[in-house]
Amino acid sequence: MALTQDDLDRYRRDGFVVQEDLFTADEVDLLCDALTEDARTPGPQVVTESDGRTLRAVYASHLRHPVFHRLARTERLLGPARQIAGDELYVHQMKVNVKQSFAGERWAWHQDYIVWRDADGMPAPSQVNVALLLDDCTEFNGPVIFLRGSHTLGTLERDRVTAGDGTGHIDPDRYALSPRELSDVVERHEMVAPKAGRGSVLFFSPQMVHGSNTNVSPHPRRLLILTYNPVPQAPRPAGEPRPEYLVGRARNALEIDRGLLKHA
Amino acid sequence: MALTQDDLDRYRRDGFVVQEDLFTADEVDLLCDALTEDARTPGPQVVTESDGRTLRAVYASHLRHPVFHRLARTERLLGPARQIAGDELYVHQMKVNVKQSFAGERWAWHQDYIVWRDADGMPAPSQVNVALLLDDCTEFNGPVIFLRGSHTLGTLERDRVTAGDGTGHIDPDRYALSPRELSDVVERHEMVAPKAGRGSVLFFSPQMVHGSNTNVSPHPRRLLILTYNPVPQAPRPAGEPRPEYLVGRARNALEIDRGLLKHA
Repeated sequence: MALTQDDLDRYRRDGFVVQEDLFTADEVDLLCDALTEDARTPGPQVVTESDGRTLRAVYASHLRHPVFHRLARTERLLGPARQIAGDELYVHQMKVNVKQSFAGERWAWHQDYIVWRDADGMPAPSQVNVALLLDDCTEFNGPVIFLRGSHTLGTLERDRVTAGDGTGHIDPDRYALSPRELSDVVERHEMVAPKAGRGSVLFFSPQMVHGSNTNVSPHPRRLLILTYNPVPQAPRPAGEPRPEYLVGRARNALEIDRGLLKHA
Repeated sequence: MALTQDDLDRYRRDGFVVQEDLFTADEVDLLCDALTEDARTPGPQVVTESDGRTLRAVYASHLRHPVFHRLARTERLLGPARQIAGDELYVHQMKVNVKQSFAGERWAWHQDYIVWRDADGMPAPSQVNVALLLDDCTEFNGPVIFLRGSHTLGTLERDRVTAGDGTGHIDPDRYALSPRELSDVVERHEMVAPKAGRGSVLFFSPQMVHGSNTNVSPHPRRLLILTYNPVPQAPRPAGEPRPEYLVGRARNALEIDRGLLKHA
């Protein structure tokens, strides 16, 4: 389950690495059922598409649901993330981007770290993103597209954006790369959209330029993203911190839970 | 250059067949230059995206520009189309769908024939669509997606739509399959998006269910589509016919032009 040296080298070079079939079909079913349960909890952590009805994302399920609490501590995710970070970790943010069939809208081309830096006072791009596929990922249901190696460009600066709608959410469109910037980056960093089966996991850098297209297929593309942050690198916000479902406040080092996701 | 029996069998079975590299890079450059010239002719045959500025499509360039006039008669396109149709042909419609980088919007899932039947009195689905790639087609720049073999389903009936905006254009969204219909069709007819280099050609049935996603790449996806119709199957509109740039009126059998696209 641990990443090999080759995996780690690939992560450093490309900014991401894929681990196929880390979770069984039964485990993914369990996670999907837990998501359905947790999405019923009303609150600003549940985000809809622009139609105001279709579920787009659910945040911080690990703070409410025992299955996701355990998932965040499973060796299969926390182990490799620790190898990459070289440090003890806590959960900075957890979300599921649902991208429903025929309805899930695209995500603009962006980097993650700059948002957390500006909005939350995150001191360094030391996070590890862990994306667990809850559905088979094809070229038709809006896979995440990486610009391979773009994490080596560092932070691509832009006008500072602050959250102004009261929920703390920041629309990635507001941090989107311009067409000209993206054209330049793509000249040197090719687009690549890893396809893999449900239960597979992508580990990727918070400096990676990434985006995704609309889901034009009849199949949903639910993607669970856990962002771990090193314990010594906790954010130091200039003012009031954003809500806990966006910026984790439990910053003690996570211990690996060797139990099953589903407790007896 | 002629289709083989295997190609013809594939067209009957799948509803499409791909012929790679039918045109040279120089010829595609010539076509792109001619398109740029022709797109400057103002009129309703030039269609913009919903932003009102970005070029989305240009119709009937073969009626205005000598390069496209010759293209419609080149053996490489007209020859295979005649093999498929088994009849003499004329141009029912010609368009270039531009799908600009970062801007080209998706096309809803639809069939072509039903639109021509309802709007133009087209008597039978005997057309042959010929799509010439003016740009390399990748998974990122909004390739045409076919539902393989869906042409065998015949016409999927829906509420009749008439053009009401004065230009004669009909938004394919108004003929789009519902999510439920599409889910059913995809169960039996897989999505497939042929990737090929510029200068390649897709021949496809007017009964094929097809669509495409947004272009999220920095590369345009210009697609030239010639629709040939058998001479004996000319439309018989109930009322006033739509404008000539949408419904060809020169219905004599095309003769093959064996000259170069670019005359000396």
